[in-house]
Amino acid sequence: MSQPVTFEITHVDPHSGARTGILHTPHGDAETPMFMPVGTQATVKFLSPEELYEIHTGVVLANTYHLWLRPGEDVIAEAGGVQKFMNYRGPMLTDSGGFQVFSLADVRQIKEEGVTFRNTLNGDLLFLSPEKSIQIQNKIGADIIMSFDECIPYPADYDYARQSMERTLRWAQRGKDAHQRPDEQALFGIVQGGDYQELRDTCAEKLVEMDFPGYAIGGTSVGEDKETFLRMVGWSVEKLPWDKPRYLMGVGAVNDLLNAVALNIDMCDCVLPTRLARHGTLLTSQGRINIRKAIYAHDFTPLDPECDCYCCRNYTKAYLHHLFRCNEGFGLRLMSIHNIRFLVHLMEQTRKAIREDRFSEFRQEYLANMKFDERGF
Amino acid sequence: MSQPVTFEITHVDPHSGARTGILHTPHGDAETPMFMPVGTQATVKFLSPEELYEIHTGVVLANTYHLWLRPGEDVIAEAGGVQKFMNYRGPMLTDSGGFQVFSLADVRQIKEEGVTFRNTLNGDLLFLSPEKSIQIQNKIGADIIMSFDECIPYPADYDYARQSMERTLRWAQRGKDAHQRPDEQALFGIVQGGDYQELRDTCAEKLVEMDFPGYAIGGTSVGEDKETFLRMVGWSVEKLPWDKPRYLMGVGAVNDLLNAVALNIDMCDCVLPTRLARHGTLLTSQGRINIRKAIYAHDFTPLDPECDCYCCRNYTKAYLHHLFRCNEGFGLRLMSIHNIRFLVHLMEQTRKAIREDRFSEFRQEYLANMKFDERGF
Repeated sequence: MSQPVTFEITHVDPHSGARTGILHTPHGDAETPMFMPVGTQATVKFLSPEELYEIHTGVVLANTYHLWLRPGEDVIAEAGGVQKFMNYRGPMLTDSGGFQVFSLADVRQIKEEGVTFRNTLNGDLLFLSPEKSIQIQNKIGADIIMSFDECIPYPADYDYARQSMERTLRWAQRGKDAHQRPDEQALFGIVQGGDYQELRDTCAEKLVEMDFPGYAIGGTSVGEDKETFLRMVGWSVEKLPWDKPRYLMGVGAVNDLLNAVALNIDMCDCVLPTRLARHGTLLTSQGRINIRKAIYAHDFTPLDPECDCYCCRNYTKAYLHHLFRCNEGFGLRLMSIHNIRFLVHLMEQTRKAIREDRFSEFRQEYLANMKFDERGF
Repeated sequence: MSQPVTFEITHVDPHSGARTGILHTPHGDAETPMFMPVGTQATVKFLSPEELYEIHTGVVLANTYHLWLRPGEDVIAEAGGVQKFMNYRGPMLTDSGGFQVFSLADVRQIKEEGVTFRNTLNGDLLFLSPEKSIQIQNKIGADIIMSFDECIPYPADYDYARQSMERTLRWAQRGKDAHQRPDEQALFGIVQGGDYQELRDTCAEKLVEMDFPGYAIGGTSVGEDKETFLRMVGWSVEKLPWDKPRYLMGVGAVNDLLNAVALNIDMCDCVLPTRLARHGTLLTSQGRINIRKAIYAHDFTPLDPECDCYCCRNYTKAYLHHLFRCNEGFGLRLMSIHNIRFLVHLMEQTRKAIREDRFSEFRQEYLANMKFDERGF
């Protein structure tokens, strides 16, 4: 069987061990390490596909949970898959829906068979299982799809974390068995195990035995401190094969991204840049800007003089301040473009540093002079 | 004194008397007859300037009332004018604020000096006069600016309509006297007079005596029936000089546009296309579409197969239906692009029909087969 998604490591920085690579997918290549923006409802909020191309996003995410509820996976299958549905020509990835079920929905019952919960839109009782998740993702048709996993809260006691991780492993196997389009869509396994090294170890080992074309790390960024976060990521990647892509789910803070790359993470995603933009918070080379502030009313300089995005090339802080105060959609669009570009550009700088064998210096210097607070934004 | 805005009549259809022309402005030319989209807060909702160029909009409007309140005319003057502020390279026009004062605000007092009313944003008592309106518009810096007029309700009794029209004439003269940038901005007079031929006549005659570079028709589309509307427009234009541009304010319904052109109207504006888009209502060559309807959930055809806009070239009704149901900004953006393009394209067809001396047939055929209801949308 030919793999639809392959990973090519193009350079390893001998000092840091950090690596650059290319993810080859049926919808084109994407350079790693990369930050992936989220298009929850088959749209990266306010942005056109052309704007995403210009930002040089590699892979774009969509959320299985949301697309399952609206418009339904059958509509997307009829359209010829999510890329055709939303007119995006690049590579895409769908999550399994598990994270949304456990974080958004009112979960009624977690059983071996799957999870029963209430639809966040209308209160209907719904059921999601590993088979169902893969079936939906097969219909949505993204290049990379995810195993259905349980996302446990933090902290979780050892026994629960172990039971859950073991179930997640069984679910991973069931998802793999249910996968109907393995030569068109790459199914990634997800390492869980909470804050327990032994569980992360076991989970990674067992997943690797199942032989996935890529591995994700789940159950982090769920409220733990930064030290714990890095420990969990570090344990998770230890047993993963070097030559397979590693995807750290839900990470978009600047410091987390750089620290993840140091742990040989190749892919990260987060709603952070678009969510911050909707609150008028911008990530810039000069630090965080809250565009609502009155000081920007007469500021006719670009948001970030070091940024090459459409927003920074063409508009002033005064205009953005005005649009934000008036709650104008074009302002949210411009600020989303900028924030996504900021993180994509950070990863471009990161790849350059790796190629030039100076990633450790780059990361240390960046973090030492970081203009953001300890949260990394 | 050189006129900043000049009008060149390029063709007259000998059968209908309808005309095409070019409005030459400091920010480029615009072909007439034309439909002008409205960028109330210095942004045509959800759209970029580049998207407006692609739609081939000629002149874009901005609202003096809104820009006066936010961000304030001084901010825009500091930016170098509204075009620089919003990064729009084409011609622009501002209204006087009068219409908003009389339609949105809680008017406290109309005196010879001006109008006292409450700020719709914070309840502050504000005052607008002919001088103040022109002063604000001088700072905003659009290519075409408008006299401050009173917009009376319909129906209005003769005595009130007469008094108001006479005051509007005095206000027009005061605005003309107050105009500080006559060689950079063309100030248009506005014909008022309610539903009274004699008053419309007198108003037009007196304005023409004051010699404005263009004339607008105000006080229509305020609740009167279509017959009355056309009568009011017809009376208003009768005494206007042939060689000056005529602007019918607040008109965007398909039948009104074509009937206005038959009366030698050169410019129209309306929020209709963007407002309809926000409610999921689309104007198409097949008639009006309400994209919310369930029948579009699986409809993978373009919104309008005869339309050349970005939305129709790239997206399906099913996708638009999904975006609208999810309240996604990208959907409002796509639908606004389409609706504006629809009216701009209608005016392109109109100009072509005039150039080919078949405007009467074009209009009659279009209206006889019009796919919209009697409102013209």
